[in-house]
Amino acid sequence: MNSCGDLTGGFPYAAIDDVIDRALREDLGLGDATTDALIPSELLGAANLVARSPGVLAGVQVACEVFRRVATSIEAEPLVEDGSRLERGQVIARISGSMAGILKAERTALNLLQRMSGIATMTAELVDAVKGTNTRIIDTRKTAPGLRALDKYSVTAGGGTNHRFNLGDLVLIKDNHLETLAAEGLGIADVVRLARQNARHNLRIEVEVETVDQAGEALAGGADIILLDNMSPDEMSRAVTLVAGRALTEASGDISMATVRAAAESGVDLISVGALTHSVKALNIALDYQT
Amino acid sequence: MNSCGDLTGGFPYAAIDDVIDRALREDLGLGDATTDALIPSELLGAANLVARSPGVLAGVQVACEVFRRVATSIEAEPLVEDGSRLERGQVIARISGSMAGILKAERTALNLLQRMSGIATMTAELVDAVKGTNTRIIDTRKTAPGLRALDKYSVTAGGGTNHRFNLGDLVLIKDNHLETLAAEGLGIADVVRLARQNARHNLRIEVEVETVDQAGEALAGGADIILLDNMSPDEMSRAVTLVAGRALTEASGDISMATVRAAAESGVDLISVGALTHSVKALNIALDYQT
Amino acid sequence: MNSCGDLTGGFPYAAIDDVIDRALREDLGLGDATTDALIPSELLGAANLVARSPGVLAGVQVACEVFRRVATSIEAEPLVEDGSRLERGQVIARISGSMAGILKAERTALNLLQRMSGIATMTAELVDAVKGTNTRIIDTRKTAPGLRALDKYSVTAGGGTNHRFNLGDLVLIKDNHLETLAAEGLGIADVVRLARQNARHNLRIEVEVETVDQAGEALAGGADIILLDNMSPDEMSRAVTLVAGRALTEASGDISMATVRAAAESGVDLISVGALTHSVKALNIALDYQT
Amino acid sequence: MNSCGDLTGGFPYAAIDDVIDRALREDLGLGDATTDALIPSELLGAANLVARSPGVLAGVQVACEVFRRVATSIEAEPLVEDGSRLERGQVIARISGSMAGILKAERTALNLLQRMSGIATMTAELVDAVKGTNTRIIDTRKTAPGLRALDKYSVTAGGGTNHRFNLGDLVLIKDNHLETLAAEGLGIADVVRLARQNARHNLRIEVEVETVDQAGEALAGGADIILLDNMSPDEMSRAVTLVAGRALTEASGDISMATVRAAAESGVDLISVGALTHSVKALNIALDYQT
Amino acid sequence: MNSCGDLTGGFPYAAIDDVIDRALREDLGLGDATTDALIPSELLGAANLVARSPGVLAGVQVACEVFRRVATSIEAEPLVEDGSRLERGQVIARISGSMAGILKAERTALNLLQRMSGIATMTAELVDAVKGTNTRIIDTRKTAPGLRALDKYSVTAGGGTNHRFNLGDLVLIKDNHLETLAAEGLGIADVVRLARQNARHNLRIEVEVETVDQAGEALAGGADIILLDNMSPDEMSRAVTLVAGRALTEASGDISMATVRAAAESGVDLISVGALTHSVKALNIALDYQT
Amino acid sequence: MNSCGDLTGGFPYAAIDDVIDRALREDLGLGDATTDALIPSELLGAANLVARSPGVLAGVQVACEVFRRVATSIEAEPLVEDGSRLERGQVIARISGSMAGILKAERTALNLLQRMSGIATMTAELVDAVKGTNTRIIDTRKTAPGLRALDKYSVTAGGGTNHRFNLGDLVLIKDNHLETLAAEGLGIADVVRLARQNARHNLRIEVEVETVDQAGEALAGGADIILLDNMSPDEMSRAVTLVAGRALTEASGDISMATVRAAAESGVDLISVGALTHSVKALNIALDYQT
Repeated sequence: MNSCGDLTGGFPYAAIDDVIDRALREDLGLGDATTDALIPSELLGAANLVARSPGVLAGVQVACEVFRRVATSIEAEPLVEDGSRLERGQVIARISGSMAGILKAERTALNLLQRMSGIATMTAELVDAVKGTNTRIIDTRKTAPGLRALDKYSVTAGGGTNHRFNLGDLVLIKDNHLETLAAEGLGIADVVRLARQNARHNLRIEVEVETVDQAGEALAGGADIILLDNMSPDEMSRAVTLVAGRALTEASGDISMATVRAAAESGVDLISVGALTHSVKALNIALDYQT
Repeated sequence: MNSCGDLTGGFPYAAIDDVIDRALREDLGLGDATTDALIPSELLGAANLVARSPGVLAGVQVACEVFRRVATSIEAEPLVEDGSRLERGQVIARISGSMAGILKAERTALNLLQRMSGIATMTAELVDAVKGTNTRIIDTRKTAPGLRALDKYSVTAGGGTNHRFNLGDLVLIKDNHLETLAAEGLGIADVVRLARQNARHNLRIEVEVETVDQAGEALAGGADIILLDNMSPDEMSRAVTLVAGRALTEASGDISMATVRAAAESGVDLISVGALTHSVKALNIALDYQT
Repeated sequence: MNSCGDLTGGFPYAAIDDVIDRALREDLGLGDATTDALIPSELLGAANLVARSPGVLAGVQVACEVFRRVATSIEAEPLVEDGSRLERGQVIARISGSMAGILKAERTALNLLQRMSGIATMTAELVDAVKGTNTRIIDTRKTAPGLRALDKYSVTAGGGTNHRFNLGDLVLIKDNHLETLAAEGLGIADVVRLARQNARHNLRIEVEVETVDQAGEALAGGADIILLDNMSPDEMSRAVTLVAGRALTEASGDISMATVRAAAESGVDLISVGALTHSVKALNIALDYQT
Repeated sequence: MNSCGDLTGGFPYAAIDDVIDRALREDLGLGDATTDALIPSELLGAANLVARSPGVLAGVQVACEVFRRVATSIEAEPLVEDGSRLERGQVIARISGSMAGILKAERTALNLLQRMSGIATMTAELVDAVKGTNTRIIDTRKTAPGLRALDKYSVTAGGGTNHRFNLGDLVLIKDNHLETLAAEGLGIADVVRLARQNARHNLRIEVEVETVDQAGEALAGGADIILLDNMSPDEMSRAVTLVAGRALTEASGDISMATVRAAAESGVDLISVGALTHSVKALNIALDYQT
Repeated sequence: MNSCGDLTGGFPYAAIDDVIDRALREDLGLGDATTDALIPSELLGAANLVARSPGVLAGVQVACEVFRRVATSIEAEPLVEDGSRLERGQVIARISGSMAGILKAERTALNLLQRMSGIATMTAELVDAVKGTNTRIIDTRKTAPGLRALDKYSVTAGGGTNHRFNLGDLVLIKDNHLETLAAEGLGIADVVRLARQNARHNLRIEVEVETVDQAGEALAGGADIILLDNMSPDEMSRAVTLVAGRALTEASGDISMATVRAAAESGVDLISVGALTHSVKALNIALDYQT
Repeated sequence: MNSCGDLTGGFPYAAIDDVIDRALREDLGLGDATTDALIPSELLGAANLVARSPGVLAGVQVACEVFRRVATSIEAEPLVEDGSRLERGQVIARISGSMAGILKAERTALNLLQRMSGIATMTAELVDAVKGTNTRIIDTRKTAPGLRALDKYSVTAGGGTNHRFNLGDLVLIKDNHLETLAAEGLGIADVVRLARQNARHNLRIEVEVETVDQAGEALAGGADIILLDNMSPDEMSRAVTLVAGRALTEASGDISMATVRAAAESGVDLISVGALTHSVKALNIALDYQT
């Protein structure tokens, strides 16, 4: 478990610091007109982060750090690890110290925690839905601008795994790349070979295809991963049979809770879901003050 | 209309620049392994931003700017103004220039445009639902960290109006402030008066109340705005009658499409909806390449 | 009291950190050629911040933090709270630790402390001058670029209160706005109503007027605050009578020690003074080394 | 003359960009609530920067750049060069373009221009007062935190010259350095020699002394510049005679308009005046809108 | 060819901007005392970037951009593309415009151009030395802090290819990872399998081995790339035979001009050379002023 | 000795923080795919920084700080001071704590330490070569962009001294300045006098000359330092005789180990060597894990 005090665990360097700093500047850049007017600075308080809905937790360390960043004297102790299933009413963390500081930090901490846990919760629902298959649920680059590292971490907290972090850590040949080069007479296999020749040797190569035949061409070209775009479960199944483990297969295209099981049963290795991060439903978590 | 080339229109200084810069560093900070390997840098291309679902547009200038930022030679011309209703298939903007540049900018432009238009669309649905009443739909501070200015702008594009931007531009006395001061023997009216005395004279004062009686106390203390938290339409109606225009009234508390009309018909001036920004559903907009 | 170790008290998030960091980069960005050449790094020293003139203190925590930022081993203990009246010779804070560190931090600490206390001192003189009236002394946006948060804090330390922090937290309709809209046929009352309709509901609206009649129009339009620009005490008195508490009144226009009392006796609620921050006279405070 | 479009002239790289950016974030970071509510974005306007008091101009390019930064379509043309004497009513620059943009930029442009011209004006008064002597008026490091480059540039616009920019570009041995090393048995001449040995060979060495005898010791040690601290004109005169051109002499210590001529007539090469930058009186410059 | 005006070509977003900005702040952050004192700002000049030694060019666009950044009026036209072989005396680019600007930019432009071309030149020497084999010369993460993107780009200009950009875009299991897990009873093949299970599916996996047997274990575990550390050419040859194209092989370990050919003839796919970036010899390029 | 915990010693404010932060963002900005996949976060480890070649140490505090920055729980204790001569195999520092943290920080720490020690080692070789003369070895502005402060510190650790830090802290009149002004009829002595008149009084003035006669002109103009560019030892000797201690003399022009002794014996005060920082050979230092 990453304790609240160790933010370096699974996170890229400085990602959390940067996000928290930016969020606090947004909200507290002029101070807190209400709290500064009403709450004596020496007053102490305590509060719990509590789940109002069931879900999966992500971001408890981040939320705790927000409180400490606002007032170094605040203590914030997580009681549950990221990735845990939360019951309604479960206490997630205990916060204590300067009452004014807790009030000032509350919204920023909740904004982060609710989004991150919302992502983890939707991910876990999809992971549950494919249980028993060998399919993994993965994310996309459809993240909120500036929040990619936290969005992707939240997917892993929900039991999913991460697709590429950015345009530089995987070659992913999409339909538009293929069409552009088709105009120059290159077929799918040619394009994969061209990429292998031109790209860094230590990157994998994935190709997006729309038919089973194209999947065969991608395989012939030496693709490491084949993205089956908007195929029916039956087509996917045939593509998986064709590929026969010589490459990873990824299903993509508006896959939802209603369709994910059928997609997984086609035998694909991976199902990517943009909605995990582009259409997040915040998990209902509240800060209950102790009196 | 803000043309694509004038980003200063309704936006805070540098907000868009900062968000775009951060988003491009996230996605292109190592370059684009695929495009750099495959697409000749002198190749030209063209593409249209197209609505795949009906909705309300927000962010077309921002999306256009992303393309230009990636390659100064790219031209990006918006065809529709922010705030417009989009039909499925409608062309939103035309992009032309370096094919490699368009491919590199695509995801970042769409991430921004889809989120912003998603917010505008949900806002417009709620605004439509209260049509004919005098109630305005407003947002909250439950925005994605780092994206507050864009989230709030998108609400206005959808016909909503903005609540406070941060903790410094309105006094909003919440239940926890009241309870803290109740322990010192101060009632709601006392707290409002204390805030008036201590806070900057040019800030309005809003108070959160849970009963009609408390609304009366807030009014007696001189509140400018009274937040009716989690009240039934009937209670709200009685509160509105009591206040009788001497303060603004705001309804709050998980109000959704199902409940917003009834809330509005209680006569409240404002209905705030956190989901507008904390649970955004991306609007389906695509980039169609022209061949 | 904000102790030296708690910089979050009344300050906006990160404002002090940013100012101190910038100031130290300016002065120590190439190191200290003198101290590095002459003073052994292990040598310890001690010094007192001492008032050389009477005045009002502001910025003691900021100055203490400068010393600690230069060398984490330095201890800096404030002996007097911000807002206190200082006598000539009074010791304000005790600094001890690395002699080289104290020497390097001295100028930056004094630059901040002298400016902040200079603002507090001038403010206090004006506040004293209106003692017995109900008028408050307020600042303007005429602050040193980059130092607004500290300038405005210093005004409160001197017993003044703050006007708007920036262009976004109050609607202030100035003569140029009025003239621009007059060309379209709108009178003062019309413009106030237009602002009420278009601006965020949670902002107050202030209007600048030049005659008593215009004050009446502003009131009719529903202004919350009426700025009486460059009026004589007699005119102000008539405007105050006319407004009769239905809005706040603010006097403005090169008001100085010579004229402030007469202005206050007109009954205005607020007197704004740009010189508080645009023409600061540094308070004479020195660092006396203990030997 | 530095035209308004060439900010690189005499300024350090990026100094102006940084200051303007910071100032605009401070003032426009939430947008302009008034202008956005009232002024149509397509409306054009024009205005002149006009001197309301006589003085010396500094910062006209900086002010012009503020307007252009707020809206790229604004044209800003300086009519007078920095360093010029201004008459009351003289037009300094013409601004035209987006009315909303001009209104938003006004305060930030004036804050910079008034401070910079205030510094130039005070400098010019002191320079005038010593006319006919060989003494130059110089500044100190007592600048507003974050504004050193602009403060020091303004001194040169007023006819003064600059002392060191920071702790790294000159060895200046002050009383506290001397006292610290006196405790180890080193006299003034010894300390100068130690500095010559330890400091970079390309830095000059200045020493602060309080008596004529000490000036002799500094000279014997090989000081390049001797700072005569708080000496009477008579003592300074004797020190100048003693030094006899073998080092530069600098007078320092609360020298004002009342005392500067006598100081200069003592024959010192330089007179440094902290008040030039620590106690600035803004020059009265206004923006007059053209109708 | 990337023209001087298109810096987005093969470079990560903002990498060049950031490096140039940082370098100019370092050198011009206090202005240019010499040029500002001596050279009239309206004076025009012209100069050529000229190779003083033969070598391979890298960074001509970056150098050109430095000149333009210092004074927007300067024109800088590259005459040779990055990657070209330079003869002694060859003119690389023509610079013309503000003489003061050219003088101020010279050192920063040359520092970048000489380092980048030095890297390209050493890379090309190694690439030449293995001509006729199938071995590629690759770099490492042993780059100058803050300059990784430019260092790696320069390797490609010299005909080399890039290894991983950072710790996140490839799994590279080094001896210390293996030893740590050996203590828990895991062999090399086990560790590769564990990495495959835990790491992102779209990353390749490389393992560092010291013996031919270990190479076999890595292959059995499913490694994509096998790093042969400090092996003799004969051992490498046996490892290559064993691997038989089922994974890429990389030779590493202080390989120099003296040893690179023998290493390549062992049949390894890749030879990585830390010295390419950790021990750069600047290429002698000068700026010759035209008179 | 600067202990590892006190980074403020001889360094400019924030220089080290900035460099380390930038380097860690470069390398760990996406996390460490290998370590995060394989090494349990609670595992502890220990390692020593060990010299693999003899040389001179620089940067031990910087390297230690890198480890601590990656995981606050890591302890890093330097055993040798910067400036010390290292034997092959000598342990430089002990690192202990989170095994994952040590693995993540290793490359960044070594990149800094190896470059800095490489600079110190080359400097010391040149310093040794001139032992017994009065000549000092100095650096230039030919540093790696962004690393100037560390490069220059490393020169001092090797026994060298620093030339100017940037274009603002010394007037150095180069051949191109002279030629530009020659076209206006000014000789060397005239130019020196013009610089003395226009530049800040507290800057020294250095002039680059190519003949002994020109050295005489520079002296006549009052130069503080005379740079003898590309002269033979015999010419330098004559120039030194001519100058006779009335100015410092600096030899410059591709001086290497082969030529430095002869240059020094000419009697010049200073020899500047660009290769110290533009052609650094990393010192071989490794991190040996303790098992």
